Amino acid sequence: MNKKSKKPVQAMLRSIGVIRSSIKKRGESPMQGSEGAPDVWLEIDASLSDALDGIAAGDELIVLTWLHEADRETLKVHPRSDPKRRLTGVFATRSPDRPNPIGLHPVKVREVSGSRLRVGPMEVIDGTPVVDIKPVIC
Amino acid sequence: MNKKSKKPVQAMLRSIGVIRSSIKKRGESPMQGSEGAPDVWLEIDASLSDALDGIAAGDELIVLTWLHEADRETLKVHPRSDPKRRLTGVFATRSPDRPNPIGLHPVKVREVSGSRLRVGPMEVIDGTPVVDIKPVIC
Repeated sequence: MNKKSKKPVQAMLRSIGVIRSSIKKRGESPMQGSEGAPDVWLEIDASLSDALDGIAAGDELIVLTWLHEADRETLKVHPRSDPKRRLTGVFATRSPDRPNPIGLHPVKVREVSGSRLRVGPMEVIDGTPVVDIKPVIC
Repeated sequence: MNKKSKKPVQAMLRSIGVIRSSIKKRGESPMQGSEGAPDVWLEIDASLSDALDGIAAGDELIVLTWLHEADRETLKVHPRSDPKRRLTGVFATRSPDRPNPIGLHPVKVREVSGSRLRVGPMEVIDGTPVVDIKPVIC
Protein backbone atom coordinates (compact mmCIF):
# COMPACT_ATOMS: atom_id res chain seq x y z
CA MET A 1 0.00 0.00 0.00
CA ASN A 2 1.33 3.37 -0.98
CA LYS A 3 0.59 5.49 2.08
CA LYS A 4 1.36 8.74 0.30
CA SER A 5 -1.32 8.23 -2.33
CA LYS A 6 -5.09 7.93 -2.07
CA LYS A 7 -5.15 5.99 -5.35
CA PRO A 8 -6.40 2.41 -4.84
CA VAL A 9 -3.66 -0.21 -4.98
CA GLN A 10 -3.84 -2.60 -7.89
CA ALA A 11 -2.24 -6.02 -7.85
CA MET A 12 -1.96 -8.58 -10.59
CA LEU A 13 -3.52 -11.93 -9.74
CA ARG A 14 -2.19 -14.91 -11.70
CA SER A 15 -4.18 -18.08 -12.18
CA ILE A 16 -2.45 -21.08 -10.59
CA GLY A 17 -4.66 -23.50 -12.46
CA VAL A 18 -8.13 -24.15 -13.79
CA ILE A 19 -11.33 -25.99 -12.78
CA ARG A 20 -12.56 -28.85 -14.94
CA SER A 21 -16.25 -29.40 -14.17
CA SER A 22 -19.36 -30.94 -15.72
CA ILE A 23 -21.05 -27.55 -15.13
CA LYS A 24 -20.57 -25.62 -18.35
CA LYS A 25 -22.71 -22.48 -17.88
CA ARG A 26 -23.40 -20.12 -14.97
CA GLY A 27 -27.16 -20.89 -14.92
CA GLU A 28 -26.50 -24.63 -14.44
CA SER A 29 -24.63 -24.14 -11.18
CA PRO A 30 -26.20 -24.51 -7.72
CA MET A 31 -25.71 -21.42 -5.52
CA GLN A 32 -23.56 -23.20 -2.93
CA GLY A 33 -21.36 -26.29 -3.11
CA SER A 34 -23.53 -27.99 -0.50
CA GLU A 35 -26.61 -27.72 -2.73
CA GLY A 36 -25.89 -30.61 -5.08
CA ALA A 37 -22.69 -29.42 -6.76
CA PRO A 38 -20.47 -32.05 -8.38
CA ASP A 39 -16.86 -32.95 -7.70
CA VAL A 40 -14.37 -31.26 -10.05
CA TRP A 41 -10.74 -31.52 -11.07
CA LEU A 42 -8.35 -28.73 -10.14
CA GLU A 43 -5.64 -28.76 -12.79
CA ILE A 44 -2.78 -26.90 -11.11
CA ASP A 45 0.06 -25.50 -13.21
CA ALA A 46 2.83 -28.13 -13.24
CA SER A 47 5.42 -25.44 -12.39
CA LEU A 48 3.65 -25.01 -9.01
CA SER A 49 3.41 -28.70 -8.07
CA ASP A 50 5.89 -28.24 -5.19
CA ALA A 51 3.33 -25.94 -3.56
CA LEU A 52 0.87 -28.89 -3.33
CA ASP A 53 3.27 -31.01 -1.25
CA GLY A 54 1.46 -32.07 1.92
CA ILE A 55 -2.07 -32.17 0.45
CA ALA A 56 -3.65 -35.63 0.57
CA ALA A 57 -7.02 -37.31 -0.01
CA GLY A 58 -9.37 -36.56 2.89
CA ASP A 59 -7.99 -33.07 3.57
CA GLU A 60 -10.40 -30.17 3.90
CA LEU A 61 -9.33 -27.13 1.92
CA ILE A 62 -10.59 -23.74 0.85
CA VAL A 63 -10.17 -23.20 -2.88
CA LEU A 64 -10.07 -19.58 -4.05
CA THR A 65 -11.27 -18.94 -7.60
CA TRP A 66 -11.54 -15.94 -9.86
CA LEU A 67 -15.20 -15.78 -10.96
CA HIS A 68 -14.33 -14.55 -14.42
CA GLU A 69 -17.91 -14.08 -15.64
CA ALA A 70 -18.94 -11.82 -12.74
CA ASP A 71 -19.93 -8.16 -13.01
CA ARG A 72 -17.43 -6.07 -11.04
CA GLU A 73 -19.59 -2.92 -10.97
CA THR A 74 -22.48 -4.44 -8.94
CA LEU A 75 -22.68 -3.05 -5.38
CA LYS A 76 -26.13 -4.33 -4.29
CA VAL A 77 -28.06 -7.52 -5.03
CA HIS A 78 -31.18 -9.38 -3.97
CA PRO A 79 -29.73 -12.28 -1.88
CA ARG A 80 -29.98 -15.61 -3.69
CA SER A 81 -31.40 -13.70 -6.71
CA ASP A 82 -34.76 -13.63 -4.87
CA PRO A 83 -36.55 -10.36 -5.76
CA LYS A 84 -38.61 -10.68 -2.55
CA ARG A 85 -35.45 -10.25 -0.47
CA ARG A 86 -34.38 -6.65 -0.02
CA LEU A 87 -31.42 -5.21 -1.93
CA THR A 88 -28.28 -5.85 0.14
CA GLY A 89 -24.66 -4.74 -0.20
CA VAL A 90 -22.58 -7.37 -1.97
CA PHE A 91 -20.08 -7.47 0.94
CA ALA A 92 -22.94 -8.82 3.13
CA THR A 93 -23.66 -11.58 0.57
CA ARG A 94 -21.87 -14.30 -1.36
CA SER A 95 -22.91 -12.87 -4.75
CA PRO A 96 -20.31 -13.60 -7.45
CA ASP A 97 -20.96 -10.05 -8.70
CA ARG A 98 -18.69 -7.80 -6.58
CA PRO A 99 -15.67 -5.49 -7.05
CA ASN A 100 -13.14 -8.36 -6.81
CA PRO A 101 -14.98 -11.57 -7.77
CA ILE A 102 -12.97 -14.02 -5.67
CA GLY A 103 -14.87 -17.21 -4.85
CA LEU A 104 -14.26 -19.14 -1.59
CA HIS A 105 -15.10 -22.83 -1.79
CA PRO A 106 -14.76 -25.21 1.18
CA VAL A 107 -14.07 -28.65 -0.34
CA LYS A 108 -12.80 -32.10 0.54
CA VAL A 109 -9.92 -33.67 -1.38
CA ARG A 110 -11.01 -36.95 -3.00
CA GLU A 111 -7.83 -37.81 -4.91
CA VAL A 112 -4.41 -36.38 -5.71
CA SER A 113 -2.87 -37.26 -9.08
CA GLY A 114 0.37 -35.38 -9.78
CA SER A 115 -0.57 -31.71 -9.99
CA ARG A 116 -4.29 -32.54 -10.39
CA LEU A 117 -6.63 -32.63 -7.39
CA ARG A 118 -10.11 -34.15 -7.43
CA VAL A 119 -12.17 -32.09 -4.93
CA GLY A 120 -15.77 -31.35 -4.14
CA PRO A 121 -18.44 -30.41 -3.97
CA MET A 122 -17.85 -27.25 -5.97
CA GLU A 123 -20.36 -24.93 -7.63
CA VAL A 124 -18.24 -23.25 -10.31
CA ILE A 125 -18.28 -23.55 -14.07
CA ASP A 126 -15.75 -25.37 -16.22
CA GLY A 127 -12.80 -23.13 -17.07
CA THR A 128 -12.92 -21.04 -13.88
CA PRO A 129 -9.39 -19.94 -12.90
CA VAL A 130 -8.02 -21.07 -9.52
CA VAL A 131 -6.00 -18.42 -7.66
CA ASP A 132 -5.14 -20.02 -4.29
CA ILE A 133 -5.60 -23.11 -2.10
CA LYS A 134 -5.51 -22.98 1.72
CA PRO A 135 -6.25 -25.24 4.69
CA VAL A 136 -9.68 -24.66 6.29
CA ILE A 137 -9.75 -21.83 8.79
CA CYS A 138 -12.72 -22.70 11.00
CA MET B 1 -10.42 -17.97 -18.86
CA ASN B 2 -9.16 -18.13 -22.39
CA LYS B 3 -9.66 -21.79 -23.27
CA LYS B 4 -7.66 -21.50 -26.47
CA SER B 5 -4.49 -20.49 -24.68
CA LYS B 6 -2.33 -22.29 -22.12
CA LYS B 7 -1.09 -18.92 -20.88
CA PRO B 8 -2.14 -18.29 -17.26
CA VAL B 9 -4.99 -15.83 -16.90
CA GLN B 10 -4.13 -12.58 -15.20
CA ALA B 11 -6.69 -10.40 -13.50
CA MET B 12 -6.33 -7.01 -11.91
CA LEU B 13 -7.30 -6.89 -8.25
CA ARG B 14 -8.29 -3.46 -6.93
CA SER B 15 -8.07 -2.57 -3.27
CA ILE B 16 -11.50 -1.74 -1.83
CA GLY B 17 -9.97 -0.18 1.25
CA VAL B 18 -7.16 -0.38 3.75
CA ILE B 19 -6.48 -1.76 7.26
CA ARG B 20 -5.62 0.66 10.05
CA SER B 21 -3.90 -1.32 12.82
CA SER B 22 -1.60 -0.79 15.77
CA ILE B 23 0.65 -3.48 14.23
CA LYS B 24 3.16 -1.60 12.10
CA LYS B 25 5.64 -4.30 10.99
CA ARG B 26 5.35 -7.91 9.85
CA GLY B 27 7.46 -9.25 12.75
CA GLU B 28 5.10 -7.69 15.34
CA SER B 29 2.08 -9.64 14.12
CA PRO B 30 0.83 -12.88 15.70
CA MET B 31 0.51 -15.73 13.18
CA GLN B 32 -3.27 -16.03 13.52
CA GLY B 33 -5.97 -13.59 14.55
CA SER B 34 -6.90 -15.82 17.49
CA GLU B 35 -3.38 -15.56 18.94
CA GLY B 36 -3.69 -12.14 20.55
CA ALA B 37 -4.22 -9.94 17.49
CA PRO B 38 -5.86 -6.54 18.04
CA ASP B 39 -9.04 -5.09 16.59
CA VAL B 40 -8.48 -2.90 13.51
CA TRP B 41 -10.35 -0.40 11.39
CA LEU B 42 -11.27 -1.30 7.82
CA GLU B 43 -11.44 1.96 5.92
CA ILE B 44 -13.52 1.10 2.88
CA ASP B 45 -13.47 3.37 -0.17
CA ALA B 46 -16.44 5.75 0.20
CA SER B 47 -17.49 5.05 -3.42
CA LEU B 48 -18.20 1.44 -2.35
CA SER B 49 -20.24 2.21 0.78
CA ASP B 50 -23.43 0.83 -0.84
CA ALA B 51 -21.74 -2.58 -0.89
CA LEU B 52 -21.57 -2.53 2.95
CA ASP B 53 -25.35 -2.19 3.33
CA GLY B 54 -26.58 -4.99 5.60
CA ILE B 55 -23.41 -5.34 7.68
CA ALA B 56 -23.95 -4.62 11.38
CA ALA B 57 -22.13 -4.89 14.71
CA GLY B 58 -22.04 -8.52 15.84
CA ASP B 59 -21.81 -9.99 12.32
CA GLU B 60 -19.16 -12.59 11.58
CA LEU B 61 -17.31 -11.89 8.34
CA ILE B 62 -14.35 -13.10 6.35
CA VAL B 63 -12.10 -10.23 5.31
CA LEU B 64 -9.86 -10.87 2.30
CA THR B 65 -6.62 -8.90 2.21
CA TRP B 66 -3.73 -8.56 -0.21
CA LEU B 67 -0.59 -9.39 1.81
CA HIS B 68 1.50 -6.85 -0.03
CA GLU B 69 4.81 -7.65 1.70
CA ALA B 70 4.68 -11.37 0.83
CA ASP B 71 7.13 -13.18 -1.46
CA ARG B 72 5.18 -14.57 -4.44
CA GLU B 73 7.94 -16.96 -5.57
CA THR B 74 7.94 -19.14 -2.42
CA LEU B 75 6.49 -22.63 -3.03
CA LYS B 76 7.53 -24.44 0.19
CA VAL B 77 7.84 -23.29 3.80
CA HIS B 78 8.40 -24.68 7.27
CA PRO B 79 4.91 -24.40 8.86
CA ARG B 80 4.73 -21.63 11.46
CA SER B 81 8.35 -20.74 10.54
CA ASP B 82 9.45 -23.67 12.73
CA PRO B 83 12.60 -25.20 11.18
CA LYS B 84 11.84 -28.48 13.02
CA ARG B 85 8.69 -28.92 10.93
CA ARG B 86 9.30 -30.37 7.49
CA LEU B 87 9.16 -28.21 4.33
CA THR B 88 5.55 -28.17 3.11
CA GLY B 89 3.87 -26.81 0.00
CA VAL B 90 2.43 -23.35 0.60
CA PHE B 91 -1.04 -24.49 -0.56
CA ALA B 92 -1.09 -26.86 2.45
CA THR B 93 -0.26 -23.97 4.81
CA ARG B 94 -1.45 -20.47 5.68
CA SER B 95 1.94 -18.92 4.87
CA PRO B 96 1.58 -15.34 3.58
CA ASP B 97 4.32 -16.19 1.07
CA ARG B 98 2.51 -17.85 -1.88
CA PRO B 99 1.83 -17.15 -5.59
CA ASN B 100 -1.23 -14.98 -4.87
CA PRO B 101 -0.85 -13.63 -1.32
CA ILE B 102 -4.52 -13.31 -0.44
CA GLY B 103 -5.19 -13.38 3.31
CA LEU B 104 -8.42 -14.82 4.76
CA HIS B 105 -9.38 -13.42 8.14
CA PRO B 106 -12.46 -14.52 10.10
CA VAL B 107 -13.48 -11.54 12.22
CA LYS B 108 -16.36 -10.16 14.23
CA VAL B 109 -17.78 -6.70 13.51
CA ARG B 110 -17.50 -4.47 16.60
CA GLU B 111 -18.80 -1.19 15.12
CA VAL B 112 -19.95 0.31 11.82
CA SER B 113 -19.27 4.01 11.26
CA GLY B 114 -20.12 5.13 7.73
CA SER B 115 -17.78 3.29 5.41
CA ARG B 116 -15.45 2.34 8.29
CA LEU B 117 -15.79 -0.99 10.10
CA ARG B 118 -14.16 -1.82 13.42
CA VAL B 119 -13.42 -5.59 13.31
CA GLY B 120 -11.23 -8.11 15.03
CA PRO B 121 -9.17 -9.85 15.92
CA MET B 122 -6.93 -9.39 12.90
CA GLU B 123 -3.25 -10.20 12.46
CA VAL B 124 -2.26 -7.93 9.58
CA ILE B 125 -0.06 -4.86 9.48
CA ASP B 126 -1.20 -1.28 9.15
CA GLY B 127 -1.63 -0.30 5.51
CA THR B 128 -2.59 -3.78 4.24
CA PRO B 129 -5.03 -3.48 1.31
CA VAL B 130 -8.50 -5.02 1.69
CA VAL B 131 -9.81 -6.76 -1.45
CA ASP B 132 -13.13 -8.33 -0.41
CA ILE B 133 -15.53 -8.89 2.51
CA LYS B 134 -17.88 -11.89 2.72
CA PRO B 135 -20.22 -13.54 5.23
CA VAL B 136 -18.70 -16.55 7.03
CA ILE B 137 -18.95 -19.79 5.09
CA CYS B 138 -18.79 -22.44 7.82
